[in-house]
Formats: sequence, C-alpha cells, structure tokens
Amino acid sequence: MTLIESELPEDRIRAITLLEACEERLYRHDPSIRITVSGSPGVGKSSLIEAAGRNAIDRGHRVGVVTIDPTSSLSKGSILGDKSRMTHLANSPHAFVRSSPAGKVLGGLGRRTFELVTLLAAVGYDLIFIETVGVGQSEHMAWQLTDAFTLVIQPGAGDELQGIKRGITELADMVIVNKADGDFIERARLTKTQYQSALHYFTPLRKGWSPVAMLCSATAGSGLDAWLDAIEAFRKNLLLHDELRILRKGQQEAWLEWNLGMEANRLLLQHPAVKNKLQEFHQQTQTQNISIFKMAYGFEQLMQSLLLPSSGTAES
Amino acid sequence: MTLIESELPEDRIRAITLLEACEERLYRHDPSIRITVSGSPGVGKSSLIEAAGRNAIDRGHRVGVVTIDPTSSLSKGSILGDKSRMTHLANSPHAFVRSSPAGKVLGGLGRRTFELVTLLAAVGYDLIFIETVGVGQSEHMAWQLTDAFTLVIQPGAGDELQGIKRGITELADMVIVNKADGDFIERARLTKTQYQSALHYFTPLRKGWSPVAMLCSATAGSGLDAWLDAIEAFRKNLLLHDELRILRKGQQEAWLEWNLGMEANRLLLQHPAVKNKLQEFHQQTQTQNISIFKMAYGFEQLMQSLLLPSSGTAES
Repeated sequence: MTLIESELPEDRIRAITLLEACEERLYRHDPSIRITVSGSPGVGKSSLIEAAGRNAIDRGHRVGVVTIDPTSSLSKGSILGDKSRMTHLANSPHAFVRSSPAGKVLGGLGRRTFELVTLLAAVGYDLIFIETVGVGQSEHMAWQLTDAFTLVIQPGAGDELQGIKRGITELADMVIVNKADGDFIERARLTKTQYQSALHYFTPLRKGWSPVAMLCSATAGSGLDAWLDAIEAFRKNLLLHDELRILRKGQQEAWLEWNLGMEANRLLLQHPAVKNKLQEFHQQTQTQNISIFKMAYGFEQLMQSLLLPSSGTAES
Repeated sequence: MTLIESELPEDRIRAITLLEACEERLYRHDPSIRITVSGSPGVGKSSLIEAAGRNAIDRGHRVGVVTIDPTSSLSKGSILGDKSRMTHLANSPHAFVRSSPAGKVLGGLGRRTFELVTLLAAVGYDLIFIETVGVGQSEHMAWQLTDAFTLVIQPGAGDELQGIKRGITELADMVIVNKADGDFIERARLTKTQYQSALHYFTPLRKGWSPVAMLCSATAGSGLDAWLDAIEAFRKNLLLHDELRILRKGQQEAWLEWNLGMEANRLLLQHPAVKNKLQEFHQQTQTQNISIFKMAYGFEQLMQSLLLPSSGTAES
C-alpha cells in the first residue's frame, strides 16, 4: 500500500506491475463487494464500520476498510484518527484498516483509493468499506467507483419544512439512520419513515433493487446485522442480473477519466511557462490592484497555446 | 449572471470586461462580507439563510445568496429547489438569490461562484451568503474563497465516543447548532457546549477572533440575530486588524490556482491525441479484460510527452 501511494516514478512502475497482477487475479475470481459509507462528520460512520465489521468477521468475512483522511489544509498533515478509532478492526487478523490521505484531491476520495481497494480485494478481503470524508457533490465520484452506496444520517436529518433534498440521497442504495437509541429513538423512527417514502420517489438506479432505509445504533449494536444482510442481498442481486461485471467496467472508465484529469492538472501547473506566469502574478498582487479575472483569462489563453498549438481554427 | 456563466468564448470576453469593472469599483469601496454556510444535507442551511436574511433586511442590509445546486450526475439536470425554498428572499427587492449549478466541478462550489459573488458585491449586496452542497474535504475551497465560515450542525452531531472530528470543524468561525427547538433543545445545548469546548482546542485561524458555537432555530426564528451580530463582529474584527485586505488577496490567489487547474483538466481531455486514446480504450474494454492501471500509466506518459516534450532539460 505504501508502494501504491508512493510518488516516486520508479515506485510507480512497480506499483503498476503489482496492480496488473491484482487485476488478473480478480478477473478470474472476485468475491468482493465494495461499499461507500458516506455522511456528514459526526454522524458516526467510523463507529458504524467498526461495529458492523466485527459482526461481519463473526460471519466469516474478511473486512477491508479504506478511510479517507481529512487532511487539514491548515496543518498540511493528516489527522490519523480513523485507524486508532477502529481499534478492534485494526487489531483483528481478519480485517485491514488503511487510512489514506485525501491530500489536495477534491472529491471525497484519495488519489489512490481505487487502487488500494483493488489490492485489498485481490488479497482476499471480500467485504470492503470505503469511508468518505463528508457528503456532497464530491461523493458522486465515490459512488461511481464502488458497488454500493450507504448514506448515514442522524435522527431528524431532513425533516424540515422543505422535505428531503435530492442530490446525494438519490444515489443511496441504503440509508442508515444512526444513533437510533435512547431519547433519539422516536425521532429516528420518524426520520426512517420519511426517508423510506422519499426513496420511493426516486428513479431506480439498479435493476431489481429498491433502496432501503434502516435504523442502526453503532453504540448499542443494533441494526448492524440488518445492514450486513442488505449488503449481501444487494450483492446477490447484482450477480443475478450480471450487473456486477458491467458496474466494474463503468468504475474503471470513471476512474480512468478522473485520474487523467488530475494528471492533466498536475502537469500543466508544473509547466515552466505556467509556473513563470504564476510567479509574476504573485509579485504583481503585492504592489497593485490587478484584475484577477483578466489574469485568469490570460492564463487560459497561455495554456491553450501550449496544448492546442496546431488546432489551427479561429482562436483570436 | 447568465453572461458570467455562459460557456461561449465571445460571452467570456464580455464577462471579463464586466468583472474587471466590478473589481475596480470594489477596490475603491467594498462594504461586503461573504459567508460560507456549510453543513450536511438536511441540516437546514437554506431555511437558516432565508430566516436570517429576512432579519438582515430589517437591519438595512442588502442580502445576496449564491446556492450551489447539487446537479445530479444521474439526470444531468439541476434541481432548482433552493431558490423556490427561499421564497421570501427571492421575492424581496432587498435580496437576490442565485442558484448556481455545481456542474461537474468537484469542490462544493460552482465554476463561477466566486465571480457571481464579486458581481453581487459590486452592485451593492453587502451581506452575501454562499450555501455549499455538502460538507467535507471539498469545503476547504469554499473556506479559501470567502471571508467567514459558518458550519451548521444538528443537535447530537459528533457526540459519539470518539469526540468531535477535526477537519471541517477546524475551519469554522461560527458553529450553528440548528433545530434547537422542541424536544431537541436539551440535546442541542449539550452539543453546543461540546463544540464550544472543542473549538478552544484548535489553533486560532484569525487574529482577534475566537470561533463561537451558538444555538439557532430557523423554524422558531431564534438565534438568528445572534448569528448576524457575530457576522458583524467578525467583519469589524477583520477591518480592525486590516486582515480583510490580506484575506481577499489570498482568495484571489486560491481562486486563480483552482481555475487554472480546472482549465488544465478541460484542455488536456479535449486534446486530439488524448481523445483518440480514450476512445481506443473504450473499445478495448468491450472485448477484453485489460489492465486499467497500465492503461492509465500509458495515458500519463502520453500527456507528459504532449506537455513536457523536452522534460528535465530545457526551460524554453
């Protein structure tokens, strides 16, 4: 995993060889299911994975977890809290927890998350949870790269006047109302009912699968088996309709495009002409009030001339 | 605003001229404060902005709102719900609500959000709220592009075993525990206390400002004036330390870099050589099990050769 995440060019070549071998093995036999666990900070995603993961081990699963570290843009360092919070899983011989830095990547996933998941699947982890940083637009990428999407919410989420928002909720194969315990239980039941009826209004995304809302409490240990049962049923349904194979091809294509975009970004920003112009700009802002928008437009023209020199057609 | 969001090259030139004029005006006099309102879906961000915005109009403010539409990656269409939910603000002559599509942009903000905010400020909206799509890693960008960051949470958020997560919470200048009404009020008070003490542990981000946690209820109308007071105090503090000017320069630089990255992405993906190779790849996946990682590596090499033909040696 360290090799896969390495930025050194020579490591990258070795990582590619390793990943190719993983893919070949998985093309022959792949018993894994990959589940994104998304939801806002504080909703209890880690506790839920920890608790359900332990039950899954009792069922005979090998559990892989990739969590995306909310690398602070302030401290520039990862907050390595996830692994230490999932102490039981991290210490189990039947589980593997990897905390992957999100880095500068915008998109709820780390640069190498998809590769780490491939490696985990190839070495026999059959139940793989991907815990994202947060919830929002960015989670569409996580949705595109995994098999099932679990949205975790709190009791009372969304039962405002305006009803339940679409967006991320539309992507959910399973909605878990966590913290359904103690004085939250009544509100949790209400929230579950509201989400369940909202889910019915959305266009179905998977053949043969209707999204389900369920109650869980990671702390009380309730509802975890129902979640695992739902994941198992979800997987069986995918296999029944031969959708898993199609899904995985879609994931590969989405990942490739995403990866290319990031590489494009990185390469253009390190081009000498672009770098020089950026430096020039930084100096100018110190001494005068320049137009940022005009400056950006100039940059776009520069990048176009670098990349599309012979596009020939009217560019002026 | 339609001009600013237009994709046509000739519109872009006119938009740049307009934005330049806006900037010139703002360099002379800019009474605006720009506040990101972030939080998970269902937490009540829109209702809060609607309710506080009405109070702000009573105080004599002109209120601008930019909401980011969670453009569904499924329907490819925007869900134009935000504007219709903020009916009072949308219909007020002292407010302007713009629902901006997030599009394919990963980062909690639309491609042109920063430009729309500049325009709103230049035409006299002095209290500008930017409502993001969700919460998570992506919100760092929203934080970088605005003056103040308000994180909205629900009663009970984060009071799990593991304590309050860092990440997004570290960025908050103000934390609002919304829905502090009815049977949620006791839990809301507890959550506020926990957040307030957590906020004390973080490294202060602003000279002279300690992040505050507060209770609000958009539906009951409570706590809204306290939020507006906090925003006003926040702004006065920025001016006192001459931090606003420095902040805005930082915003410009962050926006420029972000914008360049997106343009780089767009340009490289439309390069003929890259497009051809992508198409070739799509055909191959239909007939054989190819290695996606090897393929991606090949793409990276291709892009490098396109962009850095004399890589390592010459600088011209």
